[in-house]
Amino acid sequence: MKLDLNSDMGEGFGPYRLCDDEAMMKIVSSANIACGFHGGEPDTMARMVRLAKENGVGIGAHPGLPDRAGFGRREMPFQPDELRQQMLYQLGALIAIAKSEGVEVGHFSFHAAMGNMVNRDPALADMMMNAISAVDPKLVVFVTPDSEIERAAKRAGLKTLALFLADRAYDAKGSLVARGLPGALVKDEPSVRARVRRFLTDGTVEAIDGTIITMPARSILVHSDTPGSLELARIVRSEISASGATLAPAAELAS
Amino acid sequence: MKLDLNSDMGEGFGPYRLCDDEAMMKIVSSANIACGFHGGEPDTMARMVRLAKENGVGIGAHPGLPDRAGFGRREMPFQPDELRQQMLYQLGALIAIAKSEGVEVGHFSFHAAMGNMVNRDPALADMMMNAISAVDPKLVVFVTPDSEIERAAKRAGLKTLALFLADRAYDAKGSLVARGLPGALVKDEPSVRARVRRFLTDGTVEAIDGTIITMPARSILVHSDTPGSLELARIVRSEISASGATLAPAAELAS
Amino acid sequence: MKLDLNSDMGEGFGPYRLCDDEAMMKIVSSANIACGFHGGEPDTMARMVRLAKENGVGIGAHPGLPDRAGFGRREMPFQPDELRQQMLYQLGALIAIAKSEGVEVGHFSFHAAMGNMVNRDPALADMMMNAISAVDPKLVVFVTPDSEIERAAKRAGLKTLALFLADRAYDAKGSLVARGLPGALVKDEPSVRARVRRFLTDGTVEAIDGTIITMPARSILVHSDTPGSLELARIVRSEISASGATLAPAAELAS
Amino acid sequence: MKLDLNSDMGEGFGPYRLCDDEAMMKIVSSANIACGFHGGEPDTMARMVRLAKENGVGIGAHPGLPDRAGFGRREMPFQPDELRQQMLYQLGALIAIAKSEGVEVGHFSFHAAMGNMVNRDPALADMMMNAISAVDPKLVVFVTPDSEIERAAKRAGLKTLALFLADRAYDAKGSLVARGLPGALVKDEPSVRARVRRFLTDGTVEAIDGTIITMPARSILVHSDTPGSLELARIVRSEISASGATLAPAAELAS
Repeated sequence: MKLDLNSDMGEGFGPYRLCDDEAMMKIVSSANIACGFHGGEPDTMARMVRLAKENGVGIGAHPGLPDRAGFGRREMPFQPDELRQQMLYQLGALIAIAKSEGVEVGHFSFHAAMGNMVNRDPALADMMMNAISAVDPKLVVFVTPDSEIERAAKRAGLKTLALFLADRAYDAKGSLVARGLPGALVKDEPSVRARVRRFLTDGTVEAIDGTIITMPARSILVHSDTPGSLELARIVRSEISASGATLAPAAELAS
Repeated sequence: MKLDLNSDMGEGFGPYRLCDDEAMMKIVSSANIACGFHGGEPDTMARMVRLAKENGVGIGAHPGLPDRAGFGRREMPFQPDELRQQMLYQLGALIAIAKSEGVEVGHFSFHAAMGNMVNRDPALADMMMNAISAVDPKLVVFVTPDSEIERAAKRAGLKTLALFLADRAYDAKGSLVARGLPGALVKDEPSVRARVRRFLTDGTVEAIDGTIITMPARSILVHSDTPGSLELARIVRSEISASGATLAPAAELAS
Repeated sequence: MKLDLNSDMGEGFGPYRLCDDEAMMKIVSSANIACGFHGGEPDTMARMVRLAKENGVGIGAHPGLPDRAGFGRREMPFQPDELRQQMLYQLGALIAIAKSEGVEVGHFSFHAAMGNMVNRDPALADMMMNAISAVDPKLVVFVTPDSEIERAAKRAGLKTLALFLADRAYDAKGSLVARGLPGALVKDEPSVRARVRRFLTDGTVEAIDGTIITMPARSILVHSDTPGSLELARIVRSEISASGATLAPAAELAS
Repeated sequence: MKLDLNSDMGEGFGPYRLCDDEAMMKIVSSANIACGFHGGEPDTMARMVRLAKENGVGIGAHPGLPDRAGFGRREMPFQPDELRQQMLYQLGALIAIAKSEGVEVGHFSFHAAMGNMVNRDPALADMMMNAISAVDPKLVVFVTPDSEIERAAKRAGLKTLALFLADRAYDAKGSLVARGLPGALVKDEPSVRARVRRFLTDGTVEAIDGTIITMPARSILVHSDTPGSLELARIVRSEISASGATLAPAAELAS
């Protein structure tokens, strides 16, 4: 059994760092690289691509809304066509930087509010997935299980890989508990370890209300911008190993 | 005989316009599309791509320094590697947007200070041209005749197309007279017409000191951001027609 | 009878212009100067201050949301406290630039979406008006008659001046018809002239549905970013003169 | 004997932090608050002002070049007048935010490249100091001893306070060793402690070549953006106390 462990990377820029990217790149199998709108910038992107290449880590585009101060977490009143161009712009930027380093971008993962806006609007999701497919039909799209983006990606002929967020709470319907609500972030190590173990053993998650829900995911995400993220990622990695599964980049696992 | 007539386009954004891009797109054969750093932004880029497609105009990337207020005309203290990533970022962004519209980016043309910085540094020029070649070896690079960028492009195996700037003065060595110096901009219609006619007839230009210099160019550039640019472009186009030459996009002419 | 004629100015930056500010500054009695977020930047602000000083025009701060591409016309999800700091930042910036030119900022006028957000939330309006008052209690606030901002300004002890927008349609309740709705913008000269004449004669406006509404304003705004704005402003000015009223900056009229 | 201990603060924004500002504000007597160009933004500025007020810390404006990715450390090709407006814009912005919190801005301290550019050009230094004086003649300007800014400030009638940088090496002429040169940054605690002790005892510093130079400063700066800055600041504070001196904000010390 192969699983992917991924994290959002290169979300700092200039003097700013949100994560020890060098260390994180030694733990994950896929890196979702910020593309300069909510975080990152061209120089950081190239640095991430080189780090990923050195460590045999798969590369994905992680585009977000143009809102550094809000870190791409606030929804903004962009029209569907504007969102599409913003996404394409960032995706293409990373593809060119990766090509110049002799590497291919293998997957795609929305950041925060941009993903939320797409995930609630099937027509927008179709527009976005068709645009991704026009750029590179081999790209693997990271999705929440049973979501609009997953369905739209499949309609567009794109492969998908379902994500389990090890450090975020779910509700009984399998949706993420919104940031800002109590209990939304799972930070303590024993809880993360227990959740990952349950997921690896049973393919389930305990929702915030105690319900046990199915989690048909093949990839585990650890957010890099929370304190302790490196340690959480190491725990997840050790649990994956302990379970007998092996790590592989997203592009090798998708279907 | 085929010639290209090109202009920098989509250099406005949001409420700002520097040129009537819709009208200009009906005159030129190639459009150098601003890529969001010195001018333009994703939505404008997509609009330019669509306009070019409708009008059968060739599309080129026109990356510049990240300096909207200075319109990319001020040199800035970026390291070679940073400049390379900035260029790749913008080039890739346009390629993805163009692909999503079913069009290919055919050429590449530096904007202002970014080009000036590259043109005086052979090592930097090699780094930049090799990066472009890694992204798409079919791209045609717009060059000043007998310049570092021309030589580096050829070393990198890229096709080039030499530019004649109809609205800018040259010195006796064939270099552009710097903006800001007296006589650098040629704005009046009779002068532009006479210059283009001489270029089309003899392949020469009268330099600012009266010297007649050879101009081995196949493409004529009209800057879109000066008042009267549309009229100048129409004059150039009519002179090209009157000379018996026909217009063709850059990608068809380069060698 | 004294009236103010004002316009939003300095909303371009770098190579971008939305209005011939030099010409407009010879027509108006008050200038609402963009403060670098939705438009303008420090150098443009200083240029506007100098132009206003030369022409005896009153100076006002015209802060907007940080959204150049959307020209500050899109509401954005900022918290009340963030909006307050954004407003103060811009106001203070203009005050310092004006002081260094030996001029005082006399009035304050919200731009677009920032104003709309404040105008529907009495608590936010109080927060904003108290902040303005803390910076300079002599500032005159431009208001829509009978609006939350007007009431909050008065509660904060600030003087106000009610605006009549000569180039925008009103509904029967005295609210502006939203941009984007048919008929929202009044561009043709005869209509503007007729509206201004009615306002000057009767103090009324014909709403978009034909209703005649009272317009208890002492200041007329002409938007500078629409084509023909200079001509519209000249018409308004000539109508004011023809009516026997004289022009005076906002700070002289407010109560 | 009274001394000031100051640090650059609020240089992060949005999700980015360069320093634990809450902790640092409990150590220093003056805070140089980033004003939104090289670091900081309106919301962070207000937070810093509130923290300073709570802790009885003096507030200063710390304007820099508009270059977040380069953290204001790269010189940029701005004209003198542009630099002046950029400085005024940032200074005014902080003054307004501070006023709204019932606090006064007491001092002024250039950040990095903006200061370097001013410090080598007496005419520019005069222009800048006169502009500051026009905004608030009571502002105290932080200076390097025997520098162009010090002389220009005095010509403009402004008070100055000379800085000793505890964490940076000096050359034998009393100039800072440029960042990037070996030994430019003094990070280890024993060295910082020894330097501060010598400064407090003898008013001297050992330059990078072993020369002992006079350091006629009344204020000690610790950079907040280096790892370990909090600990260094605590060391400096404890050495000041041990020397029998007491801490006081810059505005109380200047002459």
